[in-house]
Amino acid sequence: MKTYIGVDLGGTNVRVAKVDETGAILQIVKEPTEIGKGVEQVVSKIISMIERIEGYEAVAGIGMGVPGPVDTKNGKMILATNLPGFEGYPIASRIEEHFHVPTFLDNDVNVAGMGEALQGAGKGKDIVYYVTISTGIGGALVVNQKVIAGRNGHAGEIANLIIDRNREKVNYLNVGAVENEASGTAITRKGKAAFGEDAVQHAGDVFDLARKGNAKALEICDAVAYDLAVMFSQIAHVVDPEVFVVGGGVMKGKDVFFDKMENYFRNMIHKGMQTVVFMEAELDEPGIIGAAMLPMAYVKE
Amino acid sequence: MKTYIGVDLGGTNVRVAKVDETGAILQIVKEPTEIGKGVEQVVSKIISMIERIEGYEAVAGIGMGVPGPVDTKNGKMILATNLPGFEGYPIASRIEEHFHVPTFLDNDVNVAGMGEALQGAGKGKDIVYYVTISTGIGGALVVNQKVIAGRNGHAGEIANLIIDRNREKVNYLNVGAVENEASGTAITRKGKAAFGEDAVQHAGDVFDLARKGNAKALEICDAVAYDLAVMFSQIAHVVDPEVFVVGGGVMKGKDVFFDKMENYFRNMIHKGMQTVVFMEAELDEPGIIGAAMLPMAYVKE
Repeated sequence: MKTYIGVDLGGTNVRVAKVDETGAILQIVKEPTEIGKGVEQVVSKIISMIERIEGYEAVAGIGMGVPGPVDTKNGKMILATNLPGFEGYPIASRIEEHFHVPTFLDNDVNVAGMGEALQGAGKGKDIVYYVTISTGIGGALVVNQKVIAGRNGHAGEIANLIIDRNREKVNYLNVGAVENEASGTAITRKGKAAFGEDAVQHAGDVFDLARKGNAKALEICDAVAYDLAVMFSQIAHVVDPEVFVVGGGVMKGKDVFFDKMENYFRNMIHKGMQTVVFMEAELDEPGIIGAAMLPMAYVKE
Repeated sequence: MKTYIGVDLGGTNVRVAKVDETGAILQIVKEPTEIGKGVEQVVSKIISMIERIEGYEAVAGIGMGVPGPVDTKNGKMILATNLPGFEGYPIASRIEEHFHVPTFLDNDVNVAGMGEALQGAGKGKDIVYYVTISTGIGGALVVNQKVIAGRNGHAGEIANLIIDRNREKVNYLNVGAVENEASGTAITRKGKAAFGEDAVQHAGDVFDLARKGNAKALEICDAVAYDLAVMFSQIAHVVDPEVFVVGGGVMKGKDVFFDKMENYFRNMIHKGMQTVVFMEAELDEPGIIGAAMLPMAYVKE
């Protein structure tokens, strides 16, 4: 069975794993990124981490996931807010030249979507839309086992979808952008506004209050459910997926908002689209498995 | 050079053409659909129209465009509001059995998008999003010369995108659905409300008033520009196309709303997405050319 190396290069940690064709992780190593030491140091670290993987010489390809938009054709990051110095750096070709195997780079959300589409909840489906609802909100469209990354790697930048234009300006995103209204960060902000700075530390506190029947917390959850339904309906009308695979920390509160969300959503889409299903993301490591799947997706051609 | 038959089967007329690989129409015939005579009569008519095309025996494939969502795998219409009787009818296989060449069916907007992507304004681009703004609003995503039709053929049903949830309910579409706020029909409705039933017959009357500097007409056009910008930004964040190809009758008023629309739009998308361009649809017959391109897209595999 063929094996691949998956690299999850984050702002805080680098994780490198050997993964087989079925998505099973055979070995995994982890190190702090230490981006402050500079790009070349980070690249050397990745190389030495790969070399610590048993049988790394025999892998069929290497895939890497990074935070931010990626020029997938040239294997470079377009923006590297969390990895200063990597913007425009030819990271895929540097790794490829060292190991002499095909090496691919993509955005971490795309990569996680790929992992879930190929080996997780979306396995066997032709059109999968992956959504992660966490501190931020991101998405990835996977059609026939390939990520549609868009012209500039910005496909799936659904954080910026306008779900209600009559809101307050929060940050650089659009007024009423879904990330500012229904992400973990937004739920925390709304919880603090309703219950005070100290009563709410994170979205989970709002969910706990809702579980206890607190009316204000239920109101926040209901509003979040509606806002997310608008977001899902927008995606559905553009790409009509077979399945939405939904992951991210906010799903820990799914018991208090997800059924409501789905009801709202189903009233916002056409009758002929009702076959779409929601599945919860199921992989523990979608990012690293998806990264390892990148060469599978590309090399097959 | 290979040739193909394109069939544009509408509620009013059927048009059949022979088209070559470059998208050039070599011969075209047209008849009224006469759907009232029944499905079998319409199919017989299509067959005899194809047989009137010179050299029809030598074509490499047949493609058909129809109004409404299509099950492209089985070559059937899912809904056939304008072609009663065709819902679930195996039209592609009926034609294929008669002529013994690969025959494909798709939604008319998808097919027009395909025509524009392959042979029109989107030629040579990898990710084209086609939008038609006419009495209704429709869209089609074409990636690497293939339409992404979605699980149920509903991808591109952008008419139902919510661009402002704080509007009046107009019809079965969502409150604030873009088709009810910025289509030709919507512009006419808004014009009638502003200027009276008789003063406005169609969207063009509102555009004419705007050209003369009428403040109320300019206000309608400005609101339409903003609503369309929200729609385009939603599509852009989901698929990040290289180019939006925009067609449809409402583009006759582009001089009074399109630049405004684009300015609003560019303020709603990320810096990294600004490479996207808008091009006007350029084919006289995108539907029939696109239909003829369907077998090209599929048979190549």
